[in-house]
Amino acid sequence: MNFGIVAKVLGNLLVLEAAGMVLPLLVSIYYNQHDKKAFIICIALTGLVGFILSRIPNKKKMIKIKEAMAIVSIGWVTISVFGSLPFVFSGSISSFVDAFFETVSGFTTTGATIIDNVEALPKGILFWRSFTHWIGGMGVLVFTVAILPALGVGSFQIFKAETSGPVAERIVPRIKDTAKILYVIYLAMTIAEIVLLILGGMSLFDSIVHTFGSVGTGGFSTRSASIGAYDSTYIRMVIAVFMMLSGVNFSLYYGLIKGKWRDVVRDQELRFYLGIIGVSTILIALNLNTNIYKNIWESLKYAYFQVSSIITTTGYATTDFDKWTTFSKCILFILMFIGGCAGSTAGGIKSIRILVLLKMIKRQIKKVFHPKAVITVKIGQKSLSADVLNGISSFFMLYIVVFVLGTLVISLEGIGLVSASSAVAATLSNIGPGFEAVGPAHSFSIFSDAAKILFTFFMLLGRLELFTIIALFTPGFWRDEVGL
Amino acid sequence: MNFGIVAKVLGNLLVLEAAGMVLPLLVSIYYNQHDKKAFIICIALTGLVGFILSRIPNKKKMIKIKEAMAIVSIGWVTISVFGSLPFVFSGSISSFVDAFFETVSGFTTTGATIIDNVEALPKGILFWRSFTHWIGGMGVLVFTVAILPALGVGSFQIFKAETSGPVAERIVPRIKDTAKILYVIYLAMTIAEIVLLILGGMSLFDSIVHTFGSVGTGGFSTRSASIGAYDSTYIRMVIAVFMMLSGVNFSLYYGLIKGKWRDVVRDQELRFYLGIIGVSTILIALNLNTNIYKNIWESLKYAYFQVSSIITTTGYATTDFDKWTTFSKCILFILMFIGGCAGSTAGGIKSIRILVLLKMIKRQIKKVFHPKAVITVKIGQKSLSADVLNGISSFFMLYIVVFVLGTLVISLEGIGLVSASSAVAATLSNIGPGFEAVGPAHSFSIFSDAAKILFTFFMLLGRLELFTIIALFTPGFWRDEVGL
Repeated sequence: MNFGIVAKVLGNLLVLEAAGMVLPLLVSIYYNQHDKKAFIICIALTGLVGFILSRIPNKKKMIKIKEAMAIVSIGWVTISVFGSLPFVFSGSISSFVDAFFETVSGFTTTGATIIDNVEALPKGILFWRSFTHWIGGMGVLVFTVAILPALGVGSFQIFKAETSGPVAERIVPRIKDTAKILYVIYLAMTIAEIVLLILGGMSLFDSIVHTFGSVGTGGFSTRSASIGAYDSTYIRMVIAVFMMLSGVNFSLYYGLIKGKWRDVVRDQELRFYLGIIGVSTILIALNLNTNIYKNIWESLKYAYFQVSSIITTTGYATTDFDKWTTFSKCILFILMFIGGCAGSTAGGIKSIRILVLLKMIKRQIKKVFHPKAVITVKIGQKSLSADVLNGISSFFMLYIVVFVLGTLVISLEGIGLVSASSAVAATLSNIGPGFEAVGPAHSFSIFSDAAKILFTFFMLLGRLELFTIIALFTPGFWRDEVGL
Repeated sequence: MNFGIVAKVLGNLLVLEAAGMVLPLLVSIYYNQHDKKAFIICIALTGLVGFILSRIPNKKKMIKIKEAMAIVSIGWVTISVFGSLPFVFSGSISSFVDAFFETVSGFTTTGATIIDNVEALPKGILFWRSFTHWIGGMGVLVFTVAILPALGVGSFQIFKAETSGPVAERIVPRIKDTAKILYVIYLAMTIAEIVLLILGGMSLFDSIVHTFGSVGTGGFSTRSASIGAYDSTYIRMVIAVFMMLSGVNFSLYYGLIKGKWRDVVRDQELRFYLGIIGVSTILIALNLNTNIYKNIWESLKYAYFQVSSIITTTGYATTDFDKWTTFSKCILFILMFIGGCAGSTAGGIKSIRILVLLKMIKRQIKKVFHPKAVITVKIGQKSLSADVLNGISSFFMLYIVVFVLGTLVISLEGIGLVSASSAVAATLSNIGPGFEAVGPAHSFSIFSDAAKILFTFFMLLGRLELFTIIALFTPGFWRDEVGL
């Protein structure tokens, strides 16, 4: 392990974070809020630590797999530690654990909150809180679409680029190229949503904050009632559509720009994802029609918003969906696990993995009668290798194991099974709200500090695709081994 | 599909079932109960239909894979239809759907009941109800230990016998040999438990009934309070130990008889299974000590009984465990999925599969750093083939899919998420009671007929290892194809 390079990259990240804090400072100055001072101190502190770290001398310039993983995991934690300082220094959140929870929730684009009265926060803090979503969303895109495939770890590569395993020299330029394209698409979507929300009569500030929350699939709002506070069908639908768009594999947008719309339309994950959204919306709308909402259009609007919000793991709400019927809540619970598409800002298991798992089951049913037949699992025209299939099924199994054991530990907090399990699902899949005690009308403030720390672990675990984090805890990780 | 041979085997099964009904008839006569007539009619009817079916002429004598599967699945349903007649004819259960539910629950060794007042049933019916557990347990052993491996379908073969795929001529003698050994072991365990219970002061009748329920890992009792009605630590512990023993792979008992105790002691599934029982018992005991039970011995006794009952998917209870803490209930919920060992009368996913899945996850973590390494998954000395691993992971995924979709459909019954999901788990894993609305103090009588039929489907699905039943619903199954 070359700790020099790890420190250097972390240092650079912190300098960038300090630069990022200038925006909320400007907001605070513009609105003349009391959190100005906190931001000035945090910018100085974060910038200084970052500068010192980036100056630590290191010999080699190549990054190995292990180092990249360490950087990603430690990086996410480090920027969360410094990112939580404005909350503490401004007095918005008194406990450091709470502030850390809120910031990890922000950067991992989860949107779970420990704040019961959002309206009381100063504008600079509100901006920073949601800005962490936007930064996190960007980070996730770069991580899952550029870094993981470049390391040969991810199962699905962007732009069908050929990756011949971890060749250290080629990693950095390839990541940079991919990242650049992603920046542009992400920024374009951000601007488009802000403009559309302003056109709907939302204030500039609220438009920006809710755009951060939706394109980052985060879910922090300026209101305790979330999007339910805005009584405009136009605004609600703009946000619902942008959440849905943010849950799509971003490489498809690149495909669209390149004019490959045929490939995009035929994309199996996209079809599966949109299909689930469609079916879930209709089932919930039919289920709630007349018994909760007065007509089918009303039902469809609420159903579509919530389905889009949960499958993309955003977590915005236009109503307290915990008051829905068990059937409708059950659909939302299932969507919490499915998640958006790979290569999007959404969390969860990801639609493509679920699709592959279903195809594996189908193959096994065929195998009952043809035990010796070799049946391949295909996505589009491409047969998936045994390694990819093993990776996906192991991922699913680990997800379930973490969810189950997580629920067991959280159940010690003295809450019911639905509260405990949905709280774990909501953090592991980076959604935010769950059901009952952690439903949209409540917050995570009820939990002990130990549980809050554990939740931040789940958020990071889910965000970094499990294995990245789990690997850090294997005994061999920190030892030097040949070839890694 | 050779329907002649299917009819012939079904006919023989029904004749055997008619013979089986003679026992409850004798019980009814001995105790001079009003259900005598019902049994006489049912024996005549079942025997007659069986005799006619067995006389349907058929040319071939060989059984193909498809036919064996059809026989097993249709066979289980057919004997349940005829097995439910005594309930209806004796007036013990007025609705046929309810009687069918109760009988499927019996034969699949589930033990879920729609009867709210068990004490009111006549003795012949009580005996028959529990006898279905015993018959079902025997059937499952033959099915999973003898038939499935002989067909080359099961992942684990008994006695490490070499199975070179489905060679039709060799199937029948091999099944017969294996089945004979199983009969003897099963019968020996049954007699041992009856004797031990009588020594503890239980009546002969109750001893027999509860032995059927425990060696068959079924769970039907003569009392609404289940084993909680017997206030004897000795009786409770005898039943707890026999449930645990019935959840062990029966081929290990054969190993013991053959003097291979070293192999038995080293058996990885056995160690895993006993380890889970030990850890779960201790965790629950510590969790409930002082807050629910007055001392640690009391806690350990209740914890061990319930852990043994749930992991073996029996479903007996010495207390209303639904009143336990969320943490303890959560452990039981997890055990519902794990289940006993393969080749036992227990249901669930099975300990060996869970063990293999955990090893697959471990392998994947190693693969993060050694993407090109070939790492095998071993059970004991034996490396598992890719086919076996795919089979096991697909089984797990299908189990979860059925559980999730089942919960979704059952949630339409207007009950909570914990009730709905535990009801599905309790039937799919052949346990019996679940939590909340289907907790040990309640029954399945609250559900609609449609839901009850669906539950019988889950019970059969779980009992016949999913793929056997699912395959029946594939379009190609009933068509004639070359080579099957």
